[in-house]
Amino acid sequence: MLLKARVLEFEAKKPIVILNRADAEDLGIKPLDRVELEAGKKKRIAIVNVAEEFIRKGWIGLYGRLQEELKVKEGGNVEVKPIQQPASVVYIKKKLSGKVLKPQELKQIIKDVVEQKLSEIELTSFVTALYNHGLTLEEAAALSTAMAETGKILRLKKKPVFDKHSIGGVPGDKTSLLLVPTIAAAGCTIPKTSSRSITSPAGTADRMECLAPVELEMEEIKRVVEQTGGCLVWGGAVELAPADDLLIQIEYPLAIDPLLLPSVMSKKKAVQAKYVVIDIPTGRGAKIKTIGEANELAERFIELGKRLGIQVKCVSTFGEQPIGFGIGPALEAREALTALKGKPPADLLDKVMHIASTLLGFKNKGAEKRVLQIIKSGKAERKLREIIEAQGGDPKVQPEDIPIGEKCVKIKSGERGRILWINNHAIARIAREAGAPSDKGAGILLRKKLGDKVEKGDVLLEIYAEKGFKLNRALELAEELDVMGIGERYEMLLAKIPEEKHKRIFILER
Amino acid sequence: MLLKARVLEFEAKKPIVILNRADAEDLGIKPLDRVELEAGKKKRIAIVNVAEEFIRKGWIGLYGRLQEELKVKEGGNVEVKPIQQPASVVYIKKKLSGKVLKPQELKQIIKDVVEQKLSEIELTSFVTALYNHGLTLEEAAALSTAMAETGKILRLKKKPVFDKHSIGGVPGDKTSLLLVPTIAAAGCTIPKTSSRSITSPAGTADRMECLAPVELEMEEIKRVVEQTGGCLVWGGAVELAPADDLLIQIEYPLAIDPLLLPSVMSKKKAVQAKYVVIDIPTGRGAKIKTIGEANELAERFIELGKRLGIQVKCVSTFGEQPIGFGIGPALEAREALTALKGKPPADLLDKVMHIASTLLGFKNKGAEKRVLQIIKSGKAERKLREIIEAQGGDPKVQPEDIPIGEKCVKIKSGERGRILWINNHAIARIAREAGAPSDKGAGILLRKKLGDKVEKGDVLLEIYAEKGFKLNRALELAEELDVMGIGERYEMLLAKIPEEKHKRIFILER
Repeated sequence: MLLKARVLEFEAKKPIVILNRADAEDLGIKPLDRVELEAGKKKRIAIVNVAEEFIRKGWIGLYGRLQEELKVKEGGNVEVKPIQQPASVVYIKKKLSGKVLKPQELKQIIKDVVEQKLSEIELTSFVTALYNHGLTLEEAAALSTAMAETGKILRLKKKPVFDKHSIGGVPGDKTSLLLVPTIAAAGCTIPKTSSRSITSPAGTADRMECLAPVELEMEEIKRVVEQTGGCLVWGGAVELAPADDLLIQIEYPLAIDPLLLPSVMSKKKAVQAKYVVIDIPTGRGAKIKTIGEANELAERFIELGKRLGIQVKCVSTFGEQPIGFGIGPALEAREALTALKGKPPADLLDKVMHIASTLLGFKNKGAEKRVLQIIKSGKAERKLREIIEAQGGDPKVQPEDIPIGEKCVKIKSGERGRILWINNHAIARIAREAGAPSDKGAGILLRKKLGDKVEKGDVLLEIYAEKGFKLNRALELAEELDVMGIGERYEMLLAKIPEEKHKRIFILER
Repeated sequence: MLLKARVLEFEAKKPIVILNRADAEDLGIKPLDRVELEAGKKKRIAIVNVAEEFIRKGWIGLYGRLQEELKVKEGGNVEVKPIQQPASVVYIKKKLSGKVLKPQELKQIIKDVVEQKLSEIELTSFVTALYNHGLTLEEAAALSTAMAETGKILRLKKKPVFDKHSIGGVPGDKTSLLLVPTIAAAGCTIPKTSSRSITSPAGTADRMECLAPVELEMEEIKRVVEQTGGCLVWGGAVELAPADDLLIQIEYPLAIDPLLLPSVMSKKKAVQAKYVVIDIPTGRGAKIKTIGEANELAERFIELGKRLGIQVKCVSTFGEQPIGFGIGPALEAREALTALKGKPPADLLDKVMHIASTLLGFKNKGAEKRVLQIIKSGKAERKLREIIEAQGGDPKVQPEDIPIGEKCVKIKSGERGRILWINNHAIARIAREAGAPSDKGAGILLRKKLGDKVEKGDVLLEIYAEKGFKLNRALELAEELDVMGIGERYEMLLAKIPEEKHKRIFILER
């Protein structure tokens, strides 16, 4: 059927066209069926939407990208014909009915994901099918490989490549900011790409961005790593395993994460990592609640690594409170820098020590002493400044140079006792409400941590914000939520069910 | 955050707004999060999309419906604030993780479906969760009730209400066109609403539309049924269980149908049916392959009926070949009319007899004789003409008045023997390729059915089309597919695997 092009200014990443209902019926197609478009010598495949009036009979609405690719102008001719659905849709249905997919089937799906050929309905059914039926290790390996191969590969000269990844979930975890320069200062290669926050107050890329640019191109990353041994960049700016970024857009609104293993391991494969440590924060308030669960997950990571030619070790770390004291991009960048200048919070140093020595331990015994020496001697700090400079930041930056939010409120204790528990989720929500991570200076500074003694009137935490209305919103939320538990000892009664309203333990002061 | 309205002409049924990425980040929201919009005294909730350039910072893109509801003009002020996701999303996630939902949870989901409050990702995860985890009978009953209650209810004075439904899958099934007037002529009330075709060559609404208008309003349907005892109308034109029509838009591209039971039963509840017969076509090439499967499904329909206060009987009918000879709206309408004028194909009459007597048998024994008398005496034909007239059609219409496609091709046999099998799927696909159901006159007329003797050169079937290029496409498809099997007896070898190309048995003649 020959139709006239109507160019639409609306942005769409997927190749979508809009047909008038009458034309769609004549072609025998329904919304979300596929058509082949032909204009001049160019051909493209598109997903069909149907409109009653917006597109008149005889016309076809084309989004920007398709119009450019087909090189067709407003009113130009486009030949439209219906085609079968892509093979990947057949494979998605196969998975949906509980069957195990073959490597080439998964590869085809990932290829079509990356090329934006699948509709949201198809993508969602793929993600929910994985969530419902799980993945065999063979499927996870095939997915990891396909996700790496459909993107760019970071090929570094100096091998082997070391890497680490935390499955996240604990606020204030600035470990990578200390770990990467430590490993690089030990003479090893560690090209760390990391994510921005999705639901947390800060991702490693958000933290590092307070110190240096993180949106580097592939060639720049190569230069930085070859010069300094390490980098701390945003993975989203380079096309390493880009399928993951597209699938996250489906996982996020559903708050499910069936692609955790292939997502992590595809990124590691894409940087040609040989030795990887996976950090699994464990505890109430973390993603993984018990050591048993952590062990199960670790086993899958290790086995998957074997299939991909990557040596993996896992560490389960204490995840029942934030790491260090700062939460939010700037507060965390400050704390990391201060830590490397010789004043690390005990838990942060402990965590960096364990992960760094596990990572170096792939090749050397007794790595712990070496790690401590690298940090204490200032080598790690100098290395971080080298990396900051190579990425385009100011190598002389001091903690107090990093601006933090000017609006601040202190939250004081209404009781005396000890800190019995800290609610990670509440801390994260309040920090986000205050503006983190998009307002870099927003966040929380803890003044007390687990086990600390508290007198009535002591400051428990400070909330920082760049904007007054966000501080107010964060405060309101802090009043609502149970952020910390204070008492002399753990009480036997956890809750009465149906639960009664908790007494409020906070006094608020502006 | 106060933003300026930009009115978008694009049609969208869902309340969607578009924010600039910078504003979305400031609000702390991601694509598909929800916001509350306030303009003047009006408030609305909308789903967020994010654009890089299409909507500038400080502006908000509003689709037509939202703009009308908020009564805001281009450049007018809209106050935007983030809100939590609707409760129904929490329930969908609960089902996604395999848990059973409570009636009030399902009711909330269906309410939000009907009010278009859920994104495609959320709708798809609901449908795939139902597909993966199935429905308990309690869930199916709650869904049926919720789907009926969120739409209109057809309240007829003359009770009890009778109804029938076929789960479909067999081409050429024009049973309802004979059954409805038969039941109505017996003095019973049967307000038959039916669907248009989704993937078949014709739905009952498509067939009836060759005889009379089918897009009637509720009040018109009431008038027709109260005047004649029956009707044959398109369910999509009235808001009976409208959730179903919205969920079908997700099920169709995935070719899954987890809502079969609530979908059927909610429509029956919405017309206050008391006695219902469900037709389950059974056999290779039908949706249900074996009597065992048919029994299982029937049991669920009957049990679900009990929970909804509806008496259900099920019939499993022979589904291994099309019903009668005509396939396609006009060819089927012709055949139904001819059948009522005293020349019914044996299988069609047999099917109508069984279903009608089962339906009347709820209240009377020995209904079979009565059904036959109603059809043979011409009472059913007169009743159909009454219904046609009441719906606004021509009561004097004769079969030959119904236009069928002028382009025709006969397909002849290249062998002698008997018809051993007919491929329903191939028949349906060829009829659709010829233009059915949107070209009403397109379709297939079978000249031979199962068991019929065939000489070399005998016509097996005729393909009708309104447009030449569609006839060609249908022909090409007929050459590709195995439509009928001809032989002296069933051969023991079904297939060699890997399958060899079948020899072609058709000779084509224009």
